[in-house]
Amino acid sequence: MLAEIITIGDEILIGQIVDTNSAWMAQQLNLIGVKVKQITSVSDDADHIIEALGHAEKRVKVIFITGGLGPTKDDITKITLAKYFKMGFRRDEETLAHIEVIFERLGRPMIESNSMQADVPDGCLVIQNKNGTAPCMWFEQNGIIIVSMPGVPFEMMYLMEEEILPRLKKTLNLPCIVHKTILTAGIGESFLAVEIEPVEDSLPGHIKLAYLPKLGQVRLRLSGMGDNEELLKQEIELYAQRIISLIKPYVVVEDDIALEKAVLNVMEAEGLTLSTAESCTGGYIAHLITKHPGSSVVYKGGAVVYADELKESSLGVLSETIQNYGAVSEQTVTEMVKGALSRFNTDYAIAVTGIAGPSGEMPGKPVGTVWIAVSGKNRTIAKQFKFGNKRMQNIERSASAALMLLLNELKADKV
Amino acid sequence: MLAEIITIGDEILIGQIVDTNSAWMAQQLNLIGVKVKQITSVSDDADHIIEALGHAEKRVKVIFITGGLGPTKDDITKITLAKYFKMGFRRDEETLAHIEVIFERLGRPMIESNSMQADVPDGCLVIQNKNGTAPCMWFEQNGIIIVSMPGVPFEMMYLMEEEILPRLKKTLNLPCIVHKTILTAGIGESFLAVEIEPVEDSLPGHIKLAYLPKLGQVRLRLSGMGDNEELLKQEIELYAQRIISLIKPYVVVEDDIALEKAVLNVMEAEGLTLSTAESCTGGYIAHLITKHPGSSVVYKGGAVVYADELKESSLGVLSETIQNYGAVSEQTVTEMVKGALSRFNTDYAIAVTGIAGPSGEMPGKPVGTVWIAVSGKNRTIAKQFKFGNKRMQNIERSASAALMLLLNELKADKV
Repeated sequence: MLAEIITIGDEILIGQIVDTNSAWMAQQLNLIGVKVKQITSVSDDADHIIEALGHAEKRVKVIFITGGLGPTKDDITKITLAKYFKMGFRRDEETLAHIEVIFERLGRPMIESNSMQADVPDGCLVIQNKNGTAPCMWFEQNGIIIVSMPGVPFEMMYLMEEEILPRLKKTLNLPCIVHKTILTAGIGESFLAVEIEPVEDSLPGHIKLAYLPKLGQVRLRLSGMGDNEELLKQEIELYAQRIISLIKPYVVVEDDIALEKAVLNVMEAEGLTLSTAESCTGGYIAHLITKHPGSSVVYKGGAVVYADELKESSLGVLSETIQNYGAVSEQTVTEMVKGALSRFNTDYAIAVTGIAGPSGEMPGKPVGTVWIAVSGKNRTIAKQFKFGNKRMQNIERSASAALMLLLNELKADKV
Repeated sequence: MLAEIITIGDEILIGQIVDTNSAWMAQQLNLIGVKVKQITSVSDDADHIIEALGHAEKRVKVIFITGGLGPTKDDITKITLAKYFKMGFRRDEETLAHIEVIFERLGRPMIESNSMQADVPDGCLVIQNKNGTAPCMWFEQNGIIIVSMPGVPFEMMYLMEEEILPRLKKTLNLPCIVHKTILTAGIGESFLAVEIEPVEDSLPGHIKLAYLPKLGQVRLRLSGMGDNEELLKQEIELYAQRIISLIKPYVVVEDDIALEKAVLNVMEAEGLTLSTAESCTGGYIAHLITKHPGSSVVYKGGAVVYADELKESSLGVLSETIQNYGAVSEQTVTEMVKGALSRFNTDYAIAVTGIAGPSGEMPGKPVGTVWIAVSGKNRTIAKQFKFGNKRMQNIERSASAALMLLLNELKADKV
C-alpha cells in the first residue's frame, strides 16, 4: 500500500523549521506496511495545495496532510479541502465543546476565530484532537483516503498513534513488512558493494537492500514485503547472514542503533566502565555517549584537554613527551589514554589528539592527522589516521574511528 | 525568482533520516532573493524522478536536486538526468583526477564503480566537489536551470556556498537583499513579539521580520528587498536599532552567529581564557565551543564528570558536599566551577550539573532540574533552572543557559 505526505506551510519553505514530522510519520507508516511514495511541502496557497493533492491522488490511495489548520488568516487547509471535495461547512458541536473546555482551562476568552475552528467540511469524519483546538479530518472519496492533521508535532503524533494508524490497519488490507539493519564501519560504500555483490544480485524482488552512509559508517538495510511475517523474517535473516559472512570484520552490530550505543551495550552487558581523553574531538565523543539515556552505567567521564598544560595536569602527560614528539603523536596519545585509565579508574579508556583544522598544520602532520589510542584489560594500542581538511568532518570521523577501535578491542578481549 | 528542491532517496521516504538539507538550502536561497515554491522528496525511481522534474519545470525556473549520486546500484540520479535531457555520457577527466587524488590520500585502491563517478551527461557543466567523489552537475535547457548535488550535507553545503549561490547571483537578475540578524536569549518568541510590536507594525512592505526560535534562543531577522543596497542597509539598520532599544537585556549579539561564538569573540578580544566542568551536559558545551576554528585561543579544556567520584577527583568537589546536598545542588555546582577555575587555571569557568532524564528524578528534583555556575574575575554565581522532560532538549537548553550566564558575567565584568 502506497501513501503520500503533504505538508502545508511557508515556515518549511523558508527554512524556518525542519520538517521532522514527515520522517516520523514515514517510520510509523512503514512499520504497518504502508510505503511513502512522495513527501511534498507546499505553501499556504489554495491552488498549490489543490495541484499537489491532484498529483498525489494519481499515484497513491492514502494521503496525509499536515499543517495549515490554525485560527489565523494564513491557515487555509480546511477551506481548500472543502473546495476540493465540493463540500459545505457545518459546525461540529463536539469539537466546539472541546475548544470551550480548553479555553476555560487556560482562563482565556474565546473569540470568533476560535469557535470557527469547530467548523468542518460537511462530508468528512471528525476525529477529536485531545492536544489542541484544530480537529483532525478524515475524508474518503472514490476509494482514496485523505487525512488532514495539525502540523504541531505532538498533536500530530498523538493523532497518528491513537487514531489514524489503528484506523488504517482496520480499513486497509496491509502486507507485512520486515526490516533488518547491519551497521558497518571502517569500509566505504563502494567497497561494501563489491564485497556483497553476489548476495545483492541474488535478492528476490520483494527484498530490497539500501546503503545508508554516514562519516566512517555505512548502514545496510534489508527490507522485505510479504504476507507471512514469520517466513519473511526467516528469509531476511538468511540474506542478512549471507551478507555478514562476506564482510565480517566490518560489522559493528546487527541492529539499527548508533555505533556508540553498540559500544555501550557491549560494555554494560559485561559490567565494564569507560572514560575519555579528548583533544581535537573536544568533548564530542563524551557528548555522543552521554546523549544516550543510561550511559552513566558505563561512562564515568573524562577530560577535554585542548591546551597542552591540561594534557599534563589532567592526564599526567609528561611535558618532555609533548616537547620531544609533539601533542599529536603516538607517545602523547599513549600517555593520554594511560592517564585517563588510571586517573578516572575505568576498565577502558579512549584518547584522541589530532589536527582538526583548518589551521594547525605542522611539518609531516597535515590537517586531518589524528592519533587515537585505546587502553583496556590487556593492552594499549595507538593508531594514526589521516582524514580530510574539514574541521567538523575530522571531529566526527575521529569519534567514529575511536569508537570502532574500542569496539574491536572489546571483541578481542572477550575471546 | 522561484525555485524548487527535489530530494532523491528512499532513506527520507522511510523516515531513516530527516531532510535537514532542504531547510538549509531554503534559508540560503532566501538570503539571495530566491523563494522556494515546493520541496519534493521522491524515491530512487527513474520514472518518479522524471515526473517530479516535469511538474517542477512547469512551476519554476530553477530546480535543485540532491541525492542519488553515490557509486552503488540504487543511485540513479545521474542516469535519469541523462535520460531526461536526452544526453549521452562522457568521462570527465578533471573529476577522475580528483577522485584519484582522494583515493591516493586515503591509501585505498580504486575500483571501476569509483571511476564511473567521473562519468557525466555530456551536455552538463561539471562543478568539482572538493569534499567528495560525486561531482555536481549544472544543466541549462529552455531557460530552466537544474542543479544536481550530492545529498551528503557537508558536500552539498560546500557546493552551495562556494559554487552554486555565487553562480546563481551572477546568472539570474536578482533583486538586492539585505539581512540583519539580532540574536536574543532568555525570552520566548511570543513575549518578544509583544515587546517589539510597535516596530513590527511600522515596518514598510519591503522589509520583513522573521522569528527564528531555537531552544532558549530566538533570532530576529530583518530582510529587505530593493534596488539600492546602501539605502536599504541604512533603512534596515534603523529598524534594527529601534528593535534593540526595546529588548536590550535579551540581545546577545547583532550578528548571525552562534551563542558560543559570541562568547568566544568577546573573550578573545579581551584575552580571556575559559574552562568547563560538565555533568549532565556530558561534553556538549565543550563540543559546541571546539566546533569553532580558533577556539583554542580562549578554551583550554575541561572535565566531563558523569560519576560523582570524578567530580571529586577531577574537580576537587568534597564527598561530604555531594552526600549532604546531592550532586545536583548549588553547593556541588559551586565547588565544580571553583575546581575548574583553579585546576584548569583559566580566567572564567562554567559548570553544569542536573538531571537530563528520562530517569534520575529525586524528591524535590524532577527531571529537568539543572544547576549552572559561572566563576570569573569578580565573583561566582550559581542558578537553578527547571527545563522539561526530554533528555536532548535538556542538554541543549542547559548549554544555552550556561553560555548566556557566562556572557552576562563577561558583560558585567567589563563595565
